Amino acid sequence: MKTGVPRRWFALTLLALLLTSLLFSATALLAMVSCKDPLPSWNAGEAKDRILAFVRNVTQPGSPAFVPVQERIAVFDNDGTLCLEKPVPFQFAFSFERIRALAEIDTELAEQQPYKAVIDGDEVTLHNLDPAELEQTLMISFAGTTIESFQEAVNYWMGRARHPRYQRFYTELVYQPMMELLDYLRTNDFRIFVVSGSGADFIRVFSGTLYGIPVERVVGSSLVYELEKTAGGQRIIKTDKLNSYNVDGEKVLNIALHIGRRPILAFGNSDGDLAMLEYADNGKGPGLSLLLHHDDETREYLYAQGAEKAIETARSRGWQIVGMARDFKYVFPFELSQPR
Amino acid sequence: MKTGVPRRWFALTLLALLLTSLLFSATALLAMVSCKDPLPSWNAGEAKDRILAFVRNVTQPGSPAFVPVQERIAVFDNDGTLCLEKPVPFQFAFSFERIRALAEIDTELAEQQPYKAVIDGDEVTLHNLDPAELEQTLMISFAGTTIESFQEAVNYWMGRARHPRYQRFYTELVYQPMMELLDYLRTNDFRIFVVSGSGADFIRVFSGTLYGIPVERVVGSSLVYELEKTAGGQRIIKTDKLNSYNVDGEKVLNIALHIGRRPILAFGNSDGDLAMLEYADNGKGPGLSLLLHHDDETREYLYAQGAEKAIETARSRGWQIVGMARDFKYVFPFELSQPR
Repeated sequence: MKTGVPRRWFALTLLALLLTSLLFSATALLAMVSCKDPLPSWNAGEAKDRILAFVRNVTQPGSPAFVPVQERIAVFDNDGTLCLEKPVPFQFAFSFERIRALAEIDTELAEQQPYKAVIDGDEVTLHNLDPAELEQTLMISFAGTTIESFQEAVNYWMGRARHPRYQRFYTELVYQPMMELLDYLRTNDFRIFVVSGSGADFIRVFSGTLYGIPVERVVGSSLVYELEKTAGGQRIIKTDKLNSYNVDGEKVLNIALHIGRRPILAFGNSDGDLAMLEYADNGKGPGLSLLLHHDDETREYLYAQGAEKAIETARSRGWQIVGMARDFKYVFPFELSQPR
Repeated sequence: MKTGVPRRWFALTLLALLLTSLLFSATALLAMVSCKDPLPSWNAGEAKDRILAFVRNVTQPGSPAFVPVQERIAVFDNDGTLCLEKPVPFQFAFSFERIRALAEIDTELAEQQPYKAVIDGDEVTLHNLDPAELEQTLMISFAGTTIESFQEAVNYWMGRARHPRYQRFYTELVYQPMMELLDYLRTNDFRIFVVSGSGADFIRVFSGTLYGIPVERVVGSSLVYELEKTAGGQRIIKTDKLNSYNVDGEKVLNIALHIGRRPILAFGNSDGDLAMLEYADNGKGPGLSLLLHHDDETREYLYAQGAEKAIETARSRGWQIVGMARDFKYVFPFELSQPR
């Protein structure tokens, strides 16, 4: 073997390659055990601590609260939990256009409620209508359409309509801390489901792009479907019969029917979520029930109407109440790109 | 810098480390592109070729038939498609014990059908009963139980009962080629659902351990559930009202309701799967519909009753008919550990 420059260069090259490779491995390792805050838009406090502790406990092998991956089911209400629901839920805002179109064709309909209130923009009357009845009327206003054409209409609306207060697309009005929580749970091998009083067909249009939740993990209200034979094959039509209005106890029954397993984490914001929050808290194993409290008039809305029983039960059973004013450092994703 | 042994050793060590690392990477790369047969229990032939070609086409980026991961939904019937269904489906065999127990308590019931036929072991009468009516009677025989206690009973039965012909546990009577197909599809990022006429609560007991399919990916027949308040919280009770009998067109409607997306691959074996096979073939994009034909009297059973329309449609529309005698090298997993 000759000595001299070539051999030295050879050794140095090898050394450089090895060091690069070691450095790369070390970086990868460091990233794996990194202590980066998984919930940067949450303020420090009890809510954040409890979420982090719960996830740590159920995921750490050997922990007495350890939950195997296949049982890590988390359920989230949609309106007012993952996204804004004031002055009306997304689905209402979308359906009002349909209501107006139907009333234009049928002048008799235009004199009936809720059509009249929608046409007149009469928010007081709308607010005083039974929300269950109102939502069912809105859903049924799409009877006769196929799921596909309904979803195309939703998609078109979402790319165009803007929220009256924020003047932003509805897709911008999700809660940033909740998006981080979804990511954090996913990283810890949770399977996350939306369990909403709004229509499943409606939420499925944006659950993938907005929440990273695939269509089959959306459980919602639904009309009875009908299979129609066509020349080319089949079409699925939405009828005017309600199949399921997914609120209160129905959320629990639909979780049993669609998911088939008790969730270990449930997050809601109203009395319609109460039964579901109880379900997550009822098992023999660990469970975390969380209630979002809308107490931030400046950045969002201040309201507790329709959540009175849920708040009371959360207090008495020690569920975690998440106060938007106190616990959310940022509310909406667009705040992150703005000077504070 | 000194020359001599230490430096040479240093360079050699570096070289060895680098070579090891390169070898390791090469092995990993080789494993990734390895040509191991993913369907070893399938005989070479049209069925196997078509499955392999379909999966290759929908997964290869740039292919005109490429299907993005989020749209790779596959649906499988259960009885007679993933597992044996003769002389009666698993759920029937299980429920017959319940029927006998109920008839023992209620002697009047014992004189009615199907109770009388079950008690007498009268296979001819059972065979001539309307299968839809029979199955619904069997399901309703569990009215009043909770989902949990029902599933405990199923679990207990499965650990004990043996199939009359094979004298093996029911869990051993799944089709080995189908298990390989499930694995192969999973490897290619398909989300796989069982869509069965049997009860979802029933199949969920073993879908995870037998098929690797989690409970939330089981769509089946169901009774209406009822939420009962208890001192400790809630209980979910199965009522005696049918919620959904998941056969024929109902399979398509339940896929729309539970999954929310058209499958690109559907596998069934009877007329009850026909609508679902049409659904997978109806989209604008690629779709593969497969029908398992029970033509192997020696290793399994020979029958086409209740599959006549499906076979005819499969032929006329060019769906893939999988012949058990011709296409299955092995039928059951236990054959793999036996001398041939």
